[in-house]
Amino acid sequence: MSRWEPDATGRMVAAALDLYETRGYESTTATDIAIRAGVTERTFFRHFSDKREVLFAGSSDLENLILQGIADAGDVPALDMALNAYRTAAPIFETTRDFIVRRARVVLDNPNLRERELLKMHSLAVVIRNAMIDRGVPPTASAVAAECATSVFTIAFEKWIDGAESEGLILAIESVARELKSIADEFQVE
Amino acid sequence: MSRWEPDATGRMVAAALDLYETRGYESTTATDIAIRAGVTERTFFRHFSDKREVLFAGSSDLENLILQGIADAGDVPALDMALNAYRTAAPIFETTRDFIVRRARVVLDNPNLRERELLKMHSLAVVIRNAMIDRGVPPTASAVAAECATSVFTIAFEKWIDGAESEGLILAIESVARELKSIADEFQVE
Repeated sequence: MSRWEPDATGRMVAAALDLYETRGYESTTATDIAIRAGVTERTFFRHFSDKREVLFAGSSDLENLILQGIADAGDVPALDMALNAYRTAAPIFETTRDFIVRRARVVLDNPNLRERELLKMHSLAVVIRNAMIDRGVPPTASAVAAECATSVFTIAFEKWIDGAESEGLILAIESVARELKSIADEFQVE
Repeated sequence: MSRWEPDATGRMVAAALDLYETRGYESTTATDIAIRAGVTERTFFRHFSDKREVLFAGSSDLENLILQGIADAGDVPALDMALNAYRTAAPIFETTRDFIVRRARVVLDNPNLRERELLKMHSLAVVIRNAMIDRGVPPTASAVAAECATSVFTIAFEKWIDGAESEGLILAIESVARELKSIADEFQVE
């Protein structure tokens, strides 16, 4: 392990997921993960602050795609702009579906991980909201669009993970987005 | 403290908030809170599992109002039904605005508390979603309406806390709800 290992991160993530599935999240230590991945503990902690973070590797790639989706959206209405963030990010989930499904099950089973996942989704909504404000969309419209697009994505993601939407995450997003449109059409508001 | 103290909970909550504001959340212990409130540590831990939970006292009252709001909503569209949960709950925030504003500042300043707050808001959205499904609203419509109503409430709450909506929380909710309606009207969906 003395030379640079290009795929050390990938091996640690795979090792962590295997251990969380077989032994349970609580019973797995950072050392266990390092050993299984064939890296030193020092390497583990150079990449991740704790064992929880291993499942959130790639968060910055996701955030970059989200930002690209906002930048690339044309001069479209607020909700279309916000949803374009998730459309742009969807392929990184779709290309690793098996991993994502296994990961989602581990996260769902552990309150600690679920809490972190909610926080990460919330921070994506904030990233979208701020990027939209930067593009000149009014603050309240940006906030509502970012939050609702994040809700659409989360619900579509759940369906896609469950296998209820076998046609892919992007189509699941479009389908839930149409549901939002239809609900809002009926909405009477006082 | 040997006899039953009807307002022990209220005193502990007030003491915790005072200490979190003056000394900081991290530097305050459960013992500090108990001493300031004039109760024993044992009393503290009979009411709260840890110092974080003190700021989430009343969660079950809130949840009951949320459920009542869904039960009381007439045969209205999904989003109106979901929003009625927050309309029904709004008065408990409005009647204690000073406390709520102070509490919100402490929560905002501490990542640990912010995380717990997000989890509580998420669990309210799940309560609404399930109550709507129980009332016969289709699952996806229930999910989208519950999540979007929760977003509307969260954004309205932020504005109300900031003082940007001086006319009260319910009016702030209606104003953000109209924004959602207007954004959804423009929404092109693919």
